[in-house]
Amino acid sequence: MAAQDRVEARRLKGFRDLLPGVAASKEKIIQIARQEAYLAGFQPIATPALEYADILVGSGGGETEKEVYKFQDHGERLVGLRFDLTVPFARFVAEHQNELAFPFKKFQVDEVWRGEKPQKGRYRQFCQADLDIVGADSVAADFEVISTLLRIIEGTVNQPFTMMLSHRAVISGLIKHFFPAFDTAGENSALIALDKLGKVGAEIVQNMLVQIPGGTEAGAKSFLQVISRKDAAGHSDLAAIGDVVASDAVAAGGIARLDELIALLSPVIPKSGKVLVDLSVARGLGYYTGVVFETTIDSLPGFGSVSSGGRYDQLLSRFTNRSLPGVGGSLGVDRVLGALEELQKIPTTAAAKVYVAIATEDAQTYGIQLALELRQSGIATDYALSAGKLGNQFKYADKNGCPLVVTVGSDELKAQQFSLKNMRTGMEEKGLAAAGLVRKIQVALQ
Amino acid sequence: MAAQDRVEARRLKGFRDLLPGVAASKEKIIQIARQEAYLAGFQPIATPALEYADILVGSGGGETEKEVYKFQDHGERLVGLRFDLTVPFARFVAEHQNELAFPFKKFQVDEVWRGEKPQKGRYRQFCQADLDIVGADSVAADFEVISTLLRIIEGTVNQPFTMMLSHRAVISGLIKHFFPAFDTAGENSALIALDKLGKVGAEIVQNMLVQIPGGTEAGAKSFLQVISRKDAAGHSDLAAIGDVVASDAVAAGGIARLDELIALLSPVIPKSGKVLVDLSVARGLGYYTGVVFETTIDSLPGFGSVSSGGRYDQLLSRFTNRSLPGVGGSLGVDRVLGALEELQKIPTTAAAKVYVAIATEDAQTYGIQLALELRQSGIATDYALSAGKLGNQFKYADKNGCPLVVTVGSDELKAQQFSLKNMRTGMEEKGLAAAGLVRKIQVALQ
Repeated sequence: MAAQDRVEARRLKGFRDLLPGVAASKEKIIQIARQEAYLAGFQPIATPALEYADILVGSGGGETEKEVYKFQDHGERLVGLRFDLTVPFARFVAEHQNELAFPFKKFQVDEVWRGEKPQKGRYRQFCQADLDIVGADSVAADFEVISTLLRIIEGTVNQPFTMMLSHRAVISGLIKHFFPAFDTAGENSALIALDKLGKVGAEIVQNMLVQIPGGTEAGAKSFLQVISRKDAAGHSDLAAIGDVVASDAVAAGGIARLDELIALLSPVIPKSGKVLVDLSVARGLGYYTGVVFETTIDSLPGFGSVSSGGRYDQLLSRFTNRSLPGVGGSLGVDRVLGALEELQKIPTTAAAKVYVAIATEDAQTYGIQLALELRQSGIATDYALSAGKLGNQFKYADKNGCPLVVTVGSDELKAQQFSLKNMRTGMEEKGLAAAGLVRKIQVALQ
Repeated sequence: MAAQDRVEARRLKGFRDLLPGVAASKEKIIQIARQEAYLAGFQPIATPALEYADILVGSGGGETEKEVYKFQDHGERLVGLRFDLTVPFARFVAEHQNELAFPFKKFQVDEVWRGEKPQKGRYRQFCQADLDIVGADSVAADFEVISTLLRIIEGTVNQPFTMMLSHRAVISGLIKHFFPAFDTAGENSALIALDKLGKVGAEIVQNMLVQIPGGTEAGAKSFLQVISRKDAAGHSDLAAIGDVVASDAVAAGGIARLDELIALLSPVIPKSGKVLVDLSVARGLGYYTGVVFETTIDSLPGFGSVSSGGRYDQLLSRFTNRSLPGVGGSLGVDRVLGALEELQKIPTTAAAKVYVAIATEDAQTYGIQLALELRQSGIATDYALSAGKLGNQFKYADKNGCPLVVTVGSDELKAQQFSLKNMRTGMEEKGLAAAGLVRKIQVALQ
């Protein structure tokens, strides 16, 4: 092709390619999530990446909505790429409610898109693994989502982590108590301000609260004080908070729900995990109504959450008049992947265990036969696609990280033998009988 | 929410939701493809769904390019959703060539989008599993892609199928021979006409050929005759075709390549599969240069191809001046899924094996304990999220297709026992000791 017709190979800002080692690690994360979800009876579903824009927007996604990729399709419909899996799931449940048995426990792994400002470790396309239960408002449902996520986080992160539990009704009760002059918009603004506490600190949040119409400095100070107070076990001080909101039945119910949930979770918290009640966790998304949570990796304090979610009892009411309370949570698959990269736990390649080198062209078919035999025994095997220089073939195996190289040429073909080199130890054996290939390789890989 | 704020739960035309039974089947197809690719040393990669539009368009996708979802993003860049995985892969290789060892064998499973007219079993979003090798032009590379796909097709389709092999250079040689007056555009039009042979029949294709500037009726007749002639084994008559193109070294090389490939493939053709040379298979996409193939399921003659691909020695030259010949093939994951649906091989749900029913509220925690114990032993288990009417709980288990229901209530809690009902046989046992739960369930599931 003429050089002037050439297109520069370039990617869109904020998007990434995954090279084999990273792609294999992502796949492993998804497999662990899938296996735990399957064991816990969550059923897989899938929805399209594109939805009518009005399905996505106006769903309480808050600031996220501005980031939705929206455009006109070939039929001049206004469409958008989903920005999460929860809103399309609500649409899915409303549309298929007569085909599902409730409570419906769903599992979905899929990519989502947000045109947000790219930051280190955050991309405009990312993968989520979502567990949701709709049609149940019991603490057992909250427990089921959260305990399954704890197992998934334990299995994928493989590092000390902390899940913080909070409750929207308790936060709302505190806001109502300390800012009696706030209207509904003011209460929402207060929630959004609180959500920034971890990032910007108490002083800035206090200022934000004071500036909301009806906000007072005294109210803001007391609010932040109560919400930040911890008991001996490191939980938010639910006894003190309970006193403040005692006359608010909904908020008091939230405290009771947190107590019950902690009691259920205590025996199943994974060895590497902690679960703490932390009422300063608010979660930005508008649709949450009950328990909310997020999870951080202890050794990566600035990295942000790898798994979050909560109860959303009203979300489905956008689409259906049937009352279907829901609770759900997400593993941020690409967030976990980013954390493993940060912790340098990602292999550099994802190559086969054995590479069959071809010394002479007449041995190509023989080499293929040996490779197929190994694959048949479940051993991932690659082979040379032409009989080039042996030195180059060994370099290739080395660059790909193959631990074992089998070599065959004219002599080996005649004698039905092979040579074996262990790329880690450098040890080489010649004249091995082809009949013993699989066993020999199995032993060498142990 | 007020009824006037409600949004109708609806999907975009040409897109589908997957309910659990279907979603689980799709996942199974992908797992089989992934496992075979892994065994054969293909390495996973991933690329973004969105690319600069000029990366996608002008890449030889032909009619497909009109169907690309294109739009301006937040930064006023013209972007598009990928319409296949091959073009983004070419961009990927050009961009990362210094990080890869060649020949590079890649595997990618991902969704693609085409705004084409929706037809039965064809959607505007669909999933492909692609195997590609770049940096090798040997017959062993063609064999590696095709033989791995044959194993994947065998494992996923699980039905008699036929793969048809063809070669672009042989077809071009025949076109040049029978239509010496065609210019390059005419040759391309002839290829596109030939690609429609299976769908529209010889008469219409003959008319299309005659209408190309320089086309003659005699040429069109002879061309279609030679290309449709079969030998005793059902292959295209390569001996006769070889005589026609004997003076065309490139076409003759194509015939030799097909002969070599068939010789390599013969010993590994799966029991349920046939591989036939059929030179009437042209493949629409512009980028193919060598071997091309497509695969149909014998019992679904009108269904179309479930796996196709070919050699594309020039594709990467759009992005790089380095010569990197390639060969690749796709399993149409959603095509196979559609075929299994057509053949009624899809389960209706993907529920757990055991459902733990809760007869009385005080047994909730006990029921959860039993469920967690079963999950710990690898048995997918669901449990009631509240102690509603037992009859409804059994209906739920039945609707979800759970084969076994464990029931616990106050009495069972006190005695540390459980009841077990086999939903298939209707048989019920009471007073079973909780200590024997896992063993009892394992036996019942056998």
